[in-house]
Amino acid sequence: MKKLIIINGPNLNLLGVREPEIYGDLSFTDFLNLLQKKYSHVDLQYFQSNIEGEIIDKLHEVGFSYDGVILNAAAYTHTSVGIGDAVKGIKTPVVEVHISNTFSREAFRHTSYISPNAKGVIIGFGMQSYELAIESFLK
Amino acid sequence: MKKLIIINGPNLNLLGVREPEIYGDLSFTDFLNLLQKKYSHVDLQYFQSNIEGEIIDKLHEVGFSYDGVILNAAAYTHTSVGIGDAVKGIKTPVVEVHISNTFSREAFRHTSYISPNAKGVIIGFGMQSYELAIESFLK
Amino acid sequence: MKKLIIINGPNLNLLGVREPEIYGDLSFTDFLNLLQKKYSHVDLQYFQSNIEGEIIDKLHEVGFSYDGVILNAAAYTHTSVGIGDAVKGIKTPVVEVHISNTFSREAFRHTSYISPNAKGVIIGFGMQSYELAIESFLK
Amino acid sequence: MKKLIIINGPNLNLLGVREPEIYGDLSFTDFLNLLQKKYSHVDLQYFQSNIEGEIIDKLHEVGFSYDGVILNAAAYTHTSVGIGDAVKGIKTPVVEVHISNTFSREAFRHTSYISPNAKGVIIGFGMQSYELAIESFLK
Amino acid sequence: MKKLIIINGPNLNLLGVREPEIYGDLSFTDFLNLLQKKYSHVDLQYFQSNIEGEIIDKLHEVGFSYDGVILNAAAYTHTSVGIGDAVKGIKTPVVEVHISNTFSREAFRHTSYISPNAKGVIIGFGMQSYELAIESFLK
Amino acid sequence: MKKLIIINGPNLNLLGVREPEIYGDLSFTDFLNLLQKKYSHVDLQYFQSNIEGEIIDKLHEVGFSYDGVILNAAAYTHTSVGIGDAVKGIKTPVVEVHISNTFSREAFRHTSYISPNAKGVIIGFGMQSYELAIESFLK
Amino acid sequence: MKKLIIINGPNLNLLGVREPEIYGDLSFTDFLNLLQKKYSHVDLQYFQSNIEGEIIDKLHEVGFSYDGVILNAAAYTHTSVGIGDAVKGIKTPVVEVHISNTFSREAFRHTSYISPNAKGVIIGFGMQSYELAIESFLK
Amino acid sequence: MKKLIIINGPNLNLLGVREPEIYGDLSFTDFLNLLQKKYSHVDLQYFQSNIEGEIIDKLHEVGFSYDGVILNAAAYTHTSVGIGDAVKGIKTPVVEVHISNTFSREAFRHTSYISPNAKGVIIGFGMQSYELAIESFLK
Amino acid sequence: MKKLIIINGPNLNLLGVREPEIYGDLSFTDFLNLLQKKYSHVDLQYFQSNIEGEIIDKLHEVGFSYDGVILNAAAYTHTSVGIGDAVKGIKTPVVEVHISNTFSREAFRHTSYISPNAKGVIIGFGMQSYELAIESFLK
Amino acid sequence: MKKLIIINGPNLNLLGVREPEIYGDLSFTDFLNLLQKKYSHVDLQYFQSNIEGEIIDKLHEVGFSYDGVILNAAAYTHTSVGIGDAVKGIKTPVVEVHISNTFSREAFRHTSYISPNAKGVIIGFGMQSYELAIESFLK
Amino acid sequence: MKKLIIINGPNLNLLGVREPEIYGDLSFTDFLNLLQKKYSHVDLQYFQSNIEGEIIDKLHEVGFSYDGVILNAAAYTHTSVGIGDAVKGIKTPVVEVHISNTFSREAFRHTSYISPNAKGVIIGFGMQSYELAIESFLK
Amino acid sequence: MKKLIIINGPNLNLLGVREPEIYGDLSFTDFLNLLQKKYSHVDLQYFQSNIEGEIIDKLHEVGFSYDGVILNAAAYTHTSVGIGDAVKGIKTPVVEVHISNTFSREAFRHTSYISPNAKGVIIGFGMQSYELAIESFLK
Repeated sequence: MKKLIIINGPNLNLLGVREPEIYGDLSFTDFLNLLQKKYSHVDLQYFQSNIEGEIIDKLHEVGFSYDGVILNAAAYTHTSVGIGDAVKGIKTPVVEVHISNTFSREAFRHTSYISPNAKGVIIGFGMQSYELAIESFLK
Repeated sequence: MKKLIIINGPNLNLLGVREPEIYGDLSFTDFLNLLQKKYSHVDLQYFQSNIEGEIIDKLHEVGFSYDGVILNAAAYTHTSVGIGDAVKGIKTPVVEVHISNTFSREAFRHTSYISPNAKGVIIGFGMQSYELAIESFLK
Repeated sequence: MKKLIIINGPNLNLLGVREPEIYGDLSFTDFLNLLQKKYSHVDLQYFQSNIEGEIIDKLHEVGFSYDGVILNAAAYTHTSVGIGDAVKGIKTPVVEVHISNTFSREAFRHTSYISPNAKGVIIGFGMQSYELAIESFLK
Repeated sequence: MKKLIIINGPNLNLLGVREPEIYGDLSFTDFLNLLQKKYSHVDLQYFQSNIEGEIIDKLHEVGFSYDGVILNAAAYTHTSVGIGDAVKGIKTPVVEVHISNTFSREAFRHTSYISPNAKGVIIGFGMQSYELAIESFLK
Repeated sequence: MKKLIIINGPNLNLLGVREPEIYGDLSFTDFLNLLQKKYSHVDLQYFQSNIEGEIIDKLHEVGFSYDGVILNAAAYTHTSVGIGDAVKGIKTPVVEVHISNTFSREAFRHTSYISPNAKGVIIGFGMQSYELAIESFLK
Repeated sequence: MKKLIIINGPNLNLLGVREPEIYGDLSFTDFLNLLQKKYSHVDLQYFQSNIEGEIIDKLHEVGFSYDGVILNAAAYTHTSVGIGDAVKGIKTPVVEVHISNTFSREAFRHTSYISPNAKGVIIGFGMQSYELAIESFLK
Repeated sequence: MKKLIIINGPNLNLLGVREPEIYGDLSFTDFLNLLQKKYSHVDLQYFQSNIEGEIIDKLHEVGFSYDGVILNAAAYTHTSVGIGDAVKGIKTPVVEVHISNTFSREAFRHTSYISPNAKGVIIGFGMQSYELAIESFLK
Repeated sequence: MKKLIIINGPNLNLLGVREPEIYGDLSFTDFLNLLQKKYSHVDLQYFQSNIEGEIIDKLHEVGFSYDGVILNAAAYTHTSVGIGDAVKGIKTPVVEVHISNTFSREAFRHTSYISPNAKGVIIGFGMQSYELAIESFLK
Repeated sequence: MKKLIIINGPNLNLLGVREPEIYGDLSFTDFLNLLQKKYSHVDLQYFQSNIEGEIIDKLHEVGFSYDGVILNAAAYTHTSVGIGDAVKGIKTPVVEVHISNTFSREAFRHTSYISPNAKGVIIGFGMQSYELAIESFLK
Repeated sequence: MKKLIIINGPNLNLLGVREPEIYGDLSFTDFLNLLQKKYSHVDLQYFQSNIEGEIIDKLHEVGFSYDGVILNAAAYTHTSVGIGDAVKGIKTPVVEVHISNTFSREAFRHTSYISPNAKGVIIGFGMQSYELAIESFLK
Repeated sequence: MKKLIIINGPNLNLLGVREPEIYGDLSFTDFLNLLQKKYSHVDLQYFQSNIEGEIIDKLHEVGFSYDGVILNAAAYTHTSVGIGDAVKGIKTPVVEVHISNTFSREAFRHTSYISPNAKGVIIGFGMQSYELAIESFLK
Repeated sequence: MKKLIIINGPNLNLLGVREPEIYGDLSFTDFLNLLQKKYSHVDLQYFQSNIEGEIIDKLHEVGFSYDGVILNAAAYTHTSVGIGDAVKGIKTPVVEVHISNTFSREAFRHTSYISPNAKGVIIGFGMQSYELAIESFLK
C-alpha cells in the first residue's frame, strides 16, 4: 500500500471561505474525504500549516519513508528558499501542485523555488490538480 | 463598541530597545496602555509575533468578526506573500502602518505585499501612525 | 490657531467628474467646505494647480510660515523630482496623501519622489485621507 | 458640424525651424491653414503650449464638449503621467499623433503615457499624421 | 491605379470568431469586400498566413512592385526579427496597423520589430485602422 | 466518445533520438500506440510539426469541435505569442505539457506564452505528462 | 560684446535658504551681482523659473540670437525630455552646469536629458560652476 | 569526399538586393557557384528558407549523415529556441556564420540561441565567413 | 569565560543526511561535540530551528548578554529581512557563516540580508567556517 | 606657485592620430606646450599611461603634495573601481575631464567611478576641458 | 610578405597547464611553432601579456604598419573598454578570436568590448580559431 | 613548514594613510611584521601591486608550489575577470579576504569575480581577516 501525504501551505485552511471565485467553495477537509474514498487503496495523509518552518519539519519527517509528497506550498512557493532546499534534501519525490493557474495571476506568482527540485509540476486544474498528482504516483 | 486589533510583526517586541534613533525609546506595551486609555470606547486588542505563520493564523482568527485590523508587519511587509494573501482572504478591513518612513530607508523596504490588499496605508508618523489608523476606523 | 494648506495636483480639479468609480462623485470644493466646518479651529487653506512649477511656487510661498502642508501631488507624485526637492527644501512639514490605493493600480504609481522627504504618507482612505492628514498635524 | 482641436506640446512651436531633417520646414500655422481649408466642414481649433499643466487645462476645457482631440504631446508623451490621466479623465476621445517615427529614435521615445488611454495612435507619417487623425473622427 | 496589399498575420483568419470583445464579430473577408467597394479605384490585394516565413515570402514577392503594404503582423509583430528585416529589405513602403490598442494590453505587445522600419504606424482604431492606412497611401 | 488530440511542437519528432538523457529513448509513435491502446475509449489524434504556423493552423482546425488539446509546443512555448493567441482564441480547452522539468533547465525555458491561456499545465513527468493530461480530460 | 544668459531651474530661487550644507548660503542674486561685476565686458542676463515650460519658452526666445546659454535645469535635468529637445532645437550653444556633485547624490540625479545635446557639462564646483561656464564662452 | 551543407535563413534570398551597403551586391547563388568551384573536392549542398520550421526540418534531415552544417540563421538566430534545440539535437557539427558584424548592429542581434550549441562561430567577414566555415571542416 | 552560541537555520538539522556531496556526511551534533572539546574554555551553546521567527526569538534572547553569535541562517540568509533586522537590533556581534561556497551556487544565494549587519562573514570553508568564526571571537 | 598635474589615461597618447573626427588632430604634447606657455605661473606636470595601475601609482605619488590633479582617465573612467578608490584615498583634489561629450556616445561611457569622488567634472569642451580644469584650481 | 601578429591576453601563458579540459594541453609556444611552419610565407609575430595596458601599448605599436592583428584578449575581452578603444583607434584590422565557446560559459563572457570594432570574430574552434584568423587575412 | 603568501591589490599600499575611518591607521608592513612573529612557523611571503596584470603574474608564479594564497584584490575583486580566471587556473588554493564589510558599502562592491573560484571567503573582520585566513590554512 503506497504512503502519500498532501502538504498544504498558508491560507489553504481558508479554502471554501477565501476568494471562492478563484478557489471554489469546497472546504479542503470535505475534498480530502472524497479523495480518501476514491483512493482507498492508498494511505493518504494530510498536513496543513501556515508556518514555513513547520512545512520544512514535516517534509523532513516524511521525506525518508513515504512514497510521495503532494505539495501545495501556496504563497511560500514564491518566496521560500527553505522549502525548496527541503524538497531537494529529502529522498521522497515531491509533486508540486497549484489549484489556480498561477501564470495568469500576479507576476510574483510566476516563479517557484520548488519547481526545479520537484518530480513534476501540476498547475491550474482546480482541486483536480491534487487528484492528478496522486495518479502520478500510482502509475 | 468597535473591536480592533493591533498586530505587530517581527522585532517590534524590541521597541524601545532596538535602534531608538529610528523607533524611539518607548516600549510598545507602555504605548498600548496610553492608546487603550485614550480610546476607552474601543475594544483594542494586541498581538505580536516574530513568526510569519502565526501572524497569518491571527489574521484568520480575527478576520471574520473584528471591525478592523491595524497591521505593522515590519520586515514581513516586504517579503511575505502569505500575509498579503491572508489580508486579501479575510473579511475584516486591514490598515497597514509603519512607524518609520520606509521610503527613506533601504530600497527593499519600498515594496509591500500588503499594501495592494489594504484598506489604506499610513507610513512614517512614528507611534502616531497607530493612532491615525485607529481614527480611520472610528469615522 | 494652526495654519494648514491642502495642495492638490493635476486633474484633481476634475474630482467628482473624472473616474468616479475610483475617486467618488463629490467635488473637492464641496468636500473642502465640510472639512473647514469640521476643523473650524484650524486655518485651512486650499490650492490646486495642474502646473508642476506652480505647485513648487506655492510650496515655497507657504513653506516657511505655515504649520503644515497636506500634499496630494497626484500624477506629479511619480514624476516630479522638482516637487520632491521643494518638499525637502522648505521648513514646513509635508504630509503626502492619496485618495485611491496607488499600490493596487499601475506600477508607475508605486513610486514617489515625495515620500522620502515627507513627514508621513497616507494612502487609499478615499477623501478620509485628507482628514487623517489634518489630524496628524493637530495632535 | 464636428468640433475638433489639435493640441501640440513642447517645442512644436519651433516647427519649420527646429531639426528640419526630422520635422520638415513647414511652420505649423501654415500647415494649419491648409488643413482648415481642406476640412472646411469641420470646426478645427488649435492650441499649443510648452507647459505640461496648460495642456492638461486645455484637455479639461474641451474634454466634455468637443467631438475629438488630436494630441501631439511631443516630449511630454514620454514623461507626463498627468496628461495621460487627463486623457483618461475626460469624455472626448483623443487620438495620439506623432510626426516622426518615434520608434526609430531614442529608446525613451518608445514609451507613451498617453497611448493606453487613447482612442488610437498614429505615428510617423510626417504632417499627414494630423490629417489621418482628422479622418479618423470623420468616418 | 495604385496597387496595395493587406497582409494579415497569425490568428487574424479567426476574426469575427476569436475574442469578439476585442476584435469585433465581422469576418475579415466581409470587411475586405466593403473596403474594395469603397476604394474601387485601388487594386487592393489580400494575403493571410499563420506562418511567419510565408509572410516574409509575400513581402519579398510584392515588395519591389507594389505601391504599398498594409501589414498587421499580429503576434509576429512582437517576436519576428525576420519580418522586421523583410520590411527593411524591400522597396515598397509598409504601414503597420493594429486593430486593438496594443498599448493597453500585455506588456509584450508594447514592442514591435516592424515599427522602426515602417513608413508609419496606426494602432487601435478597430477595422478603421486598415482604412486609414489605405488613405495614407492615396494622398 | 471524447475526441482529444496531442499536438507536438518542434524537434519532438526526434524523440528517442535527440538527447536521450533528457527525453528518454522511446520514439513518440511507439509511445502513442501504447497510449491509444490504454485509452481505447478515447478518440486520440496526433499531430506534429516543426512549423509554428502549422501548429496555429491545427489549433484553429480542431479548436471548435474537439473536447481537448494536449499541447507540447516545445521550443515555441517560450517564444510564440502566436500559439498563445491561438490557444486563447479557440473554444477547446488546452492542457500544456512538458516532458522534462523546464524549470531546472535554461532560464529562457521558464516562461511560457501558453500557460496563462491554458486550462492547466503539467511539467516534468516524462512521457507520463501526456497520460496525466489525458486523465485531466476524462474526469 | 558677448550676450550670455544664465537660466536656472526649479528651487534654485531658494538658494541661500534651501539645504545650505549642499548649496551654500549665498543667494543667487547676490552671486549674480558679483559675476556681472567681474565679467563687466559681457552682457550677462538671468532667468529663473520653477515651470518646465517657461524654461523651454526662454530657450526658444534667446536660442537664435544669444551667444551662449548657461543652463542649470536642476530637478528638470533628470526628467525633462522637453528641455532636452529645446536645447537640441535651438542654435545657441548651451553649457549645462550643476552646483553640487550630482554623481555623489541619489541615483536618479545621475542621468540628464540635457547632457547629450549640450556643448559641454560642468558639475560640482559649487558657484564656480557658473563662472567656468562663462569662461568657456569667452575663449 | 566530405559532405557539407550551407543553410541560410530568412531574407538571405534577397542577398544582392537587400541593403547592399551591409550585405554587398553579389547574389548568393553566384557566390555559391564560386565556392563550389573553389572547393570542388567537397560535396557542398545548399538550402534556404524563410520558414523557421523548414530550417529545423532540414537540420533533422542532414544532421545524422552530413559531415558539417554551415548555418546562417539570420533573423532566427536571435529568436529561435527551436533551431537552437535542433542544432543541439543532431549529431552533425554546426558552424554558425554571419555576414555582417552583428555586434555593431542593434542590441537584439547580440544574442544567439545557436551559439551555445555550435561547434564554432564566425562573424563579420562578409561572404568570407562562409569560406572560413568550410575551411574549419576541412582541417 | 566567553559565552558564544551557534544558531543554525533551516535544513541544517539534515546535515550528514542531505546532499552530502555539498555538506559532507558528519552530523552537526557530532561536529558540535568536537568543537566543544576543542574550545573547552568557551561556553559554546547551540540552537537550530527551521522556523524563521524562532531564530529571531533566539537572537533577541541571547543578543543582549552573550559575547557572540555564529549564525548560519541557511536559506533564510537570502530571504529574511526579519533576521537581518534582528541582527541589527541586538547588541551582541554576529558572525555570518556558510558551509558551502554560496557564490558558486545559484544566483539567489549570492545575496544576504544578514551580511550588511554582521561583524564579519565567513563563507565556503566547510565545517571549518564555524571554527574560524569561534576564533574570530577569541582574539 | 601652484603645482598641478594632468594625468591622461589609455589611448590618449594617440591623440591627433586616433579618431580625429572625435578628438581633433592636435597631439597632446603640442597642446601641452601651449598650455604651459599660457599658464607660465603654474607648475604644470604631465603623465600618461595605458596601464591602470600606473595611473593609481601616479595618483599616490602626487596625491599628498600637489595642489590639484586634472584626470582624464579615458576608458578607465567607466571600468576602474581602483582609480576611483585612489581618487578618494588621496588628499589632493581631482578634477575629472573628458574631451568628447561622453553622454552622446555609447551607454557604457555614461557612468564613471571617478565622478562621485571628484572635486568637479568637466565634459565635452574638447581640449578646452583641460583649460577650464586648470582655471578651476586657480580661482 | 604579410606581417601579422597574434596578441594573447591574460592567463593564456598558462595554456597547456590551466584547465586543460577547456583549453587543451598544448602550450601556446609549441602551437606557435607549428603555425609558423605552416604559414612560412607569413611574418607571424607573437605577444602575450597579463597587463591590460601593455596590450594597448602593443596594439598602438603594430597598429599603423602591420597587415593584421589576431587578438585573443581573454578575460579583458569582457571588461576592457580601453582595449576596445585601441582596436578602434588603430588602422590595422583586428580579428578577435577565442579558443573556447564563450557563449556556452558564464554570462559575463557573452559580451565583448572588442567585437563591435573588430574586422571579424571567430569563436570556439579550439586552437584552430587562430588558424582561421590567419586564413582570413591571406585571402 | 607551510609556504603562504599574502597578495594585496590596488590602494592597499596606502593602508594607514587612506580613509583610516574604514581601514584603520596601521600600515600593512607594520601589521605584516606582527603576523610573521605570531606565525613564525609559517613561511609567510607578501606581495602588493596596483597593476591587475602583475597580480595575475604573481598568482601564476606561486600558484603551483605554495600551500596557500591569501588574496585581497581590493578594487579588482569587483572588476577583474582576469584575476578570477587566474585563481581558477592555478593549483594552490586561494582564500579571498576583505578588511572592511564590502556588503555594507556601495552596490558595486557586493560582487566578486574571485569568490566563485576561492577556497573560502572572509569579509569584514578588519586586519583580523588576514589572520583568520592564515588559520584556515594551518588546520
